[in-house]
Amino acid sequence: MSDSPNEGSARLVAQCAKRPGILAAVFEYLDRQGAVVLQGDQHSTDGENPRFFLRVEYDLAGLKAPPEAVAEGFGAEVASRFGMDWRVAYSSARRRIAILGTREPNCVLDLLWRARTEELAVDVAMVLSNREILRPLADRFSVPFHHLPVTRETKQEQERAMLDLLRGKVDLVVLARYMQILTPTFLDEYPERVINIHHSFLPAFAGADPYGQAEQRGVKIIGATAHYATADLDAGPIIEQDVLRVTHRDTRAELMRVGRELERQVLARAVRWHLEDRVLVHNNKTVVFS
Amino acid sequence: MSDSPNEGSARLVAQCAKRPGILAAVFEYLDRQGAVVLQGDQHSTDGENPRFFLRVEYDLAGLKAPPEAVAEGFGAEVASRFGMDWRVAYSSARRRIAILGTREPNCVLDLLWRARTEELAVDVAMVLSNREILRPLADRFSVPFHHLPVTRETKQEQERAMLDLLRGKVDLVVLARYMQILTPTFLDEYPERVINIHHSFLPAFAGADPYGQAEQRGVKIIGATAHYATADLDAGPIIEQDVLRVTHRDTRAELMRVGRELERQVLARAVRWHLEDRVLVHNNKTVVFS
Amino acid sequence: MSDSPNEGSARLVAQCAKRPGILAAVFEYLDRQGAVVLQGDQHSTDGENPRFFLRVEYDLAGLKAPPEAVAEGFGAEVASRFGMDWRVAYSSARRRIAILGTREPNCVLDLLWRARTEELAVDVAMVLSNREILRPLADRFSVPFHHLPVTRETKQEQERAMLDLLRGKVDLVVLARYMQILTPTFLDEYPERVINIHHSFLPAFAGADPYGQAEQRGVKIIGATAHYATADLDAGPIIEQDVLRVTHRDTRAELMRVGRELERQVLARAVRWHLEDRVLVHNNKTVVFS
Amino acid sequence: MSDSPNEGSARLVAQCAKRPGILAAVFEYLDRQGAVVLQGDQHSTDGENPRFFLRVEYDLAGLKAPPEAVAEGFGAEVASRFGMDWRVAYSSARRRIAILGTREPNCVLDLLWRARTEELAVDVAMVLSNREILRPLADRFSVPFHHLPVTRETKQEQERAMLDLLRGKVDLVVLARYMQILTPTFLDEYPERVINIHHSFLPAFAGADPYGQAEQRGVKIIGATAHYATADLDAGPIIEQDVLRVTHRDTRAELMRVGRELERQVLARAVRWHLEDRVLVHNNKTVVFS
Repeated sequence: MSDSPNEGSARLVAQCAKRPGILAAVFEYLDRQGAVVLQGDQHSTDGENPRFFLRVEYDLAGLKAPPEAVAEGFGAEVASRFGMDWRVAYSSARRRIAILGTREPNCVLDLLWRARTEELAVDVAMVLSNREILRPLADRFSVPFHHLPVTRETKQEQERAMLDLLRGKVDLVVLARYMQILTPTFLDEYPERVINIHHSFLPAFAGADPYGQAEQRGVKIIGATAHYATADLDAGPIIEQDVLRVTHRDTRAELMRVGRELERQVLARAVRWHLEDRVLVHNNKTVVFS
Repeated sequence: MSDSPNEGSARLVAQCAKRPGILAAVFEYLDRQGAVVLQGDQHSTDGENPRFFLRVEYDLAGLKAPPEAVAEGFGAEVASRFGMDWRVAYSSARRRIAILGTREPNCVLDLLWRARTEELAVDVAMVLSNREILRPLADRFSVPFHHLPVTRETKQEQERAMLDLLRGKVDLVVLARYMQILTPTFLDEYPERVINIHHSFLPAFAGADPYGQAEQRGVKIIGATAHYATADLDAGPIIEQDVLRVTHRDTRAELMRVGRELERQVLARAVRWHLEDRVLVHNNKTVVFS
Repeated sequence: MSDSPNEGSARLVAQCAKRPGILAAVFEYLDRQGAVVLQGDQHSTDGENPRFFLRVEYDLAGLKAPPEAVAEGFGAEVASRFGMDWRVAYSSARRRIAILGTREPNCVLDLLWRARTEELAVDVAMVLSNREILRPLADRFSVPFHHLPVTRETKQEQERAMLDLLRGKVDLVVLARYMQILTPTFLDEYPERVINIHHSFLPAFAGADPYGQAEQRGVKIIGATAHYATADLDAGPIIEQDVLRVTHRDTRAELMRVGRELERQVLARAVRWHLEDRVLVHNNKTVVFS
Repeated sequence: MSDSPNEGSARLVAQCAKRPGILAAVFEYLDRQGAVVLQGDQHSTDGENPRFFLRVEYDLAGLKAPPEAVAEGFGAEVASRFGMDWRVAYSSARRRIAILGTREPNCVLDLLWRARTEELAVDVAMVLSNREILRPLADRFSVPFHHLPVTRETKQEQERAMLDLLRGKVDLVVLARYMQILTPTFLDEYPERVINIHHSFLPAFAGADPYGQAEQRGVKIIGATAHYATADLDAGPIIEQDVLRVTHRDTRAELMRVGRELERQVLARAVRWHLEDRVLVHNNKTVVFS
């Protein structure tokens, strides 16, 4: 794997205040560099402070300069002109994730499985947990497992140990029912790079035991929400949500069973979109070019 | 329309504490009366205070006694034995509804239309509103319209006037975006007979401007909820919910447009199920034998 | 209504063989003309004969030349260079549709209603039918109704009469359960401008009585399909499809009832997308920039 | 595990020509035996040859006789009276399945996984295949794997070998993308006990390469269908179907990826319902008491 790929495609992701001429500038530049556009998505908002969002996937094959030079040129020539917040990623630069779990194997295994079968084009660098219980699962997939127990007193220390393990090794952290609240210190190191799955249709049933809450309220639909984790619990930018119908017949146990299926799908979709650089965040909301 | 139908079917709806022998007693009784069962639904809960719910639709054609006598006999022989909360309704006894609206024609017209085309087997006895704006719609369908303006000072009085209009004329009140909160005094007269439509997936986005709230929170799915109105606003027993996917492209106006379609469907389904005696309520939750 | 709008937006729709530089050329041109892009969608196919599809919505407010001149310039400068099949439509140029029906009021009324409430930004120029039965509905909405009876012998003549009525007055023909097969002669006058609703998930249950077929086969889901009408019956390019779950309880009558609701939604969505120039056709398939 | 369970529940499943008095007879009998009903479902059809379907789940705890005696008594007293096709199954009698696959691990692994995690309460007795490729998967789950290669000449022989392996060891055969057509000889041994997954919304796209067909036709929704295998290929009674929306962006590869997820869900649901004795078959259609 190389940071300077000669084949595959690049994904240019950018956002900035909305102004005329952005698309012309972007596509004129790419065309001049020999970049054939494979897919282009654009969105802009109205109202006060209108904002512009862009994702362009282009082929590296015909580039007239090395990919990095093309990207640097974009920064110097286009991005700086429009004050863009931007990045370029390469399809050849395989992403690495860490999975954090506690007890429940459901989402942990689903991610391990999808990574193994290439349903998700990702390497699982490690599984981290505050319990031992998930170790055999990680072992079965030959993925390093780290047990980092935590108490209220050792939380800071434990997070520091996790950060030490993650640093430089991981591009995305996935909370697959990790039953600990991460501190802002931790989250600040991975802005918009920690994805959490919540087993309800947020903002309904935030907090603990959402299925119990749902069963109590008598809802006819249950949901799951994948979102970027932020210091404000269950309130981070929503990446994906989905729902399933339930009836009076469904006990809490049954809600949990069907919900597990939903959780893995929603989480896997959010992780895929993140890995494919399809998710842009602004003002605690996402633009998803799915 | 007759209270003593000789044709059509009866719908027996009952609930009570769960005990052995209920089904045997119910079906033995009905069989003895010559009642051929067309559809039978049953549900029971577990846990503390387990409860039993029943809905049986039976043909009146072969009854060995007048329908009322059969029903009375059921009460005396079966319902009293099990302490049932029960009722019998006849398919021939056409239900009458009142529609309460304020400004938005969406659900009002949908209901008028469905009643006209017999998609809903119901008579719309009247449209009531605190505004004049819906009058032409009611006129177009030749449905009586009553304008009952309301201020904070005249609320009690206005509700009393509504109750006078409704009394004896209406079996169900449908709040089709009626922008006034009904008092417990009003609701007590129509327990489990006032259906409201809320344009969100309750309990998310209760209160005012749910689409604005949804757009603000960046959800990927919007919903609608039909529920029995109770004194506790937006917290009554949920009859039906449904959702639609939305994206970052959908402005608040767009959310409102797609939401309107959802609202009418969800409300119409809830009204249909109520009219067909498919909804049983216990502990602020519904059993829906749909 | 003016063909030379000074406000509102334009929708540029184009397709051509895939080649490098198209996006650069398009957006450079538009930028040079002062056209602020409101929304841009692009798609390209792989494989043999890869093809490029484009839809750009731009604001007319800042244009440096009259809208028509900008469009003409686009044709001369960009479209001709890439061999584009293209058109420009203006949001201010309100579209006119004709609704063709036979007996069933379901979709006819839904369209009339949506046009009335501006859920669809369209004028219904006329309702045409081979029966009289729908006349009162058209009258209620003050829409001209034309009764054009047809027999096997008079088919050619009747279609000619319809074409005379439609010519110059209508931009889109909607078959809202019109129970006659249109001849290629008719369809050739309105290529990709006749939308039909079929009450099944095509290609399943093509032909007559799809609900009967569905009930017979015991499917667990029913569907509806809106497509452009072509000489090859039920085989034209699919614009939109949707489905609903059904169970063993649903009789054919019940399938028809729930199906009607589905039909109107699917048809209305297809009509909306067509009217907003979101549907591009190539090789009997659609690209829908929804 | 015992055929004479003293705890858990029994599931009585029955069908017969519709006649009055069935429910009374069934529930009177069960009540007399001390059988507390946990769940009761009933369905009857109209029209010619109306038919009655029943599923009753009852607690074994309070039975006044051994479960087998209760079941035998039911046969003698009730089933014989109404000419019922019936059976009783016990929740304690764990079912055993064989999974037949060829190359694709998707559904095979999903079933192995669900069996392991008890999402499906079933024992996987063996994995059979005409290829070696799935052996490591079976090994990983410590499930016996049998490789039974097949050519046109050896088909009869191979099926005989499979039947030898299955006989007495397996209650249900699941075709998890088994790429061989089973002969009537094989299927006759397992009537309504062989479940197949087809990767389309049947009857659309029966036969080979359904995703290719779907991509070719330009559908907006893809589906999956689980059905009992019959001699008439892809035409057996449908147990469950579900769909996913797709767009012009989805290539055949993408359709296959999202389709795989759908297949496993639909197949797992059908298998669960079968295992819980929720599926009754009559006239090539199913009644599913889900």
